[in-house]
Amino acid sequence: MASSSPPLKDELDIVIPTIRNLDFLEMWRPFFQPYHLIIVQDGDPSRTIKVPDGFDYDLYNRNDINKMLGPRASCISFKDSACRCFGYMVSKKKYIYTIDDDCFVAKDPSGKDINALEQHIKNILSPSTPYFFNTLYDPFQEGNDFVRGYPFSLREGVPTAVSHGLWLNIPDYDAPTQLVKPLERNTRYVNTVMTIPKGTLFPMCGMNLAFDRDLIGPAMYFGLMGEGQPIGRYDDMWAGWCTKVICDHLGLGIKTGLPYIWHSKASNPFVNLKKEYNGIYWQEEIIPFFQSATLSKDSTTVQKCYVELSKQVKEKLGKIDPYFTKLADAMVTWIEAWDELNPATDTAKLPNGSAK
Amino acid sequence: MASSSPPLKDELDIVIPTIRNLDFLEMWRPFFQPYHLIIVQDGDPSRTIKVPDGFDYDLYNRNDINKMLGPRASCISFKDSACRCFGYMVSKKKYIYTIDDDCFVAKDPSGKDINALEQHIKNILSPSTPYFFNTLYDPFQEGNDFVRGYPFSLREGVPTAVSHGLWLNIPDYDAPTQLVKPLERNTRYVNTVMTIPKGTLFPMCGMNLAFDRDLIGPAMYFGLMGEGQPIGRYDDMWAGWCTKVICDHLGLGIKTGLPYIWHSKASNPFVNLKKEYNGIYWQEEIIPFFQSATLSKDSTTVQKCYVELSKQVKEKLGKIDPYFTKLADAMVTWIEAWDELNPATDTAKLPNGSAK
Repeated sequence: MASSSPPLKDELDIVIPTIRNLDFLEMWRPFFQPYHLIIVQDGDPSRTIKVPDGFDYDLYNRNDINKMLGPRASCISFKDSACRCFGYMVSKKKYIYTIDDDCFVAKDPSGKDINALEQHIKNILSPSTPYFFNTLYDPFQEGNDFVRGYPFSLREGVPTAVSHGLWLNIPDYDAPTQLVKPLERNTRYVNTVMTIPKGTLFPMCGMNLAFDRDLIGPAMYFGLMGEGQPIGRYDDMWAGWCTKVICDHLGLGIKTGLPYIWHSKASNPFVNLKKEYNGIYWQEEIIPFFQSATLSKDSTTVQKCYVELSKQVKEKLGKIDPYFTKLADAMVTWIEAWDELNPATDTAKLPNGSAK
Repeated sequence: MASSSPPLKDELDIVIPTIRNLDFLEMWRPFFQPYHLIIVQDGDPSRTIKVPDGFDYDLYNRNDINKMLGPRASCISFKDSACRCFGYMVSKKKYIYTIDDDCFVAKDPSGKDINALEQHIKNILSPSTPYFFNTLYDPFQEGNDFVRGYPFSLREGVPTAVSHGLWLNIPDYDAPTQLVKPLERNTRYVNTVMTIPKGTLFPMCGMNLAFDRDLIGPAMYFGLMGEGQPIGRYDDMWAGWCTKVICDHLGLGIKTGLPYIWHSKASNPFVNLKKEYNGIYWQEEIIPFFQSATLSKDSTTVQKCYVELSKQVKEKLGKIDPYFTKLADAMVTWIEAWDELNPATDTAKLPNGSAK
């Protein structure tokens, strides 16, 4: 990993939803400059985003999205960072790293700058172990292994599709928790990575997230948020629930833990509350839905899984609010747009040529 | 917790299977002396165990076990540390902490001695969250909370039945891994605690383990190991599989992570291999059995769950080897002996008086 050429240099894109903060790229320059950036501008297309010299990037604004997707552009959120998933779709690389522009380089307990991308790559290039819990956490970390009592037949693991990184300083709290604990900061550096077990859902945060686009890309749809929608701040959650169900079905793994980034500022809790209140209420039904969702054996690719899931969303969540009927349709539109931009890439084909 | 009186002083017993190492209690004196010790001698009853002055303890040898249990003493292993579970049975306290005599006080990264017992008590007195994964780990740790997207209806958590602590220095590896990596040491201090999700099994190690005897005690049977048995070093694993299935059924939680102890010496890998080889083979069938085991609604107490599980063991694992038929019978004997020594203590009665 510590070779002179950055790992996966030609196989990874960094996707950033709008950059409002000029320091952001300067701070990340030592780590990001070797990679190609995809910036997806979430608001007014006439506004200019200034990217410092030396970065290799493509910038897409709403006009570009409309031009490239035509009527299918309706599935991409407007004036919301959920639009970042357009970047996943237009990338031609195998791996994606996505990060928010208020996330800076964190320091490890020894005071050294953390190369978040390098750790994500380690996570994604080593197998996951979703079928049995290893009490020393990820057995593929350096100096680690499987403990006594771990079945040998499960030690090969499964391919890792997602690496979910964490945040020091401002924790990723919902608006009610922000309001109740305005001064709480995350100072706990937990020096490990672990696989989220099969059958267990988790709240996936999009702030500091890497994934294997070939294995799981089409499930990383960030839904309909922001302008014209009754909900916000559930884009990454939605992607996480769908992704976890599909990974469990296809025999893929999701890791969480290291690397940390430094989350510099809390978003406004009052604004957040307005965005979240429907989601806070709805998730009490959405989560049991995803916990019990099962996919058929015929769903052997991510696309097929996702379309099957969209039908279940329409049928079972449509009752909660008409929003979910619209979202279910957008899920199908998203897959159509994905397949149009990425012809003949059936994902989740495992090495033996068939999905697990 | 840091009050002048040690936490749970009159509600917790420390159970130790034989003490071969005279330094052991001296090292733990600052932390253990306030508590009552139960020492269960695993070998020749004529040998004397010297306990340093100042400790309050009861020592049970094989003669005591035979006298107290009569013919039912057959369920307690001989010449194996699995006999420690006799100590769980004779205790009259609500909480048990059990530790091996080759486990010493570890230091945290700042160099401070770790009070393992205090951390176990924190773990056990705060709820568990088995139904949804919290990416910042145990939300009840200081400075922690539930992250955005964690359903509010699940934030109350469930009672914690077990706290599984870890080990610095010598990791808890099986004999094949010991042989392959004789020099590997665990130096990774992972500063957190987490709930093992519902439906996920884990390899429970008995080296550094605390539990709520009232909630889960009768499931903590360490099986038939050692002299006259075809298997060793699976005592804690067996207890862990049974305990996890029963906790999941009754709505109880299991935490793992902090506290660390310093595991001073690796046991002989050649001896271990001889003890383990059947278990290594058998666990490939045992674990799928426990993964798919379900208990009936009528099993509303730990005892009822355990007896129901024993029938399934006889029926489904009896085919592997006659040992499992014998073990299934011993499971029933264990419950009979437990109930004889602990009359009228139906465990897992939740505050409202009925099991969940």
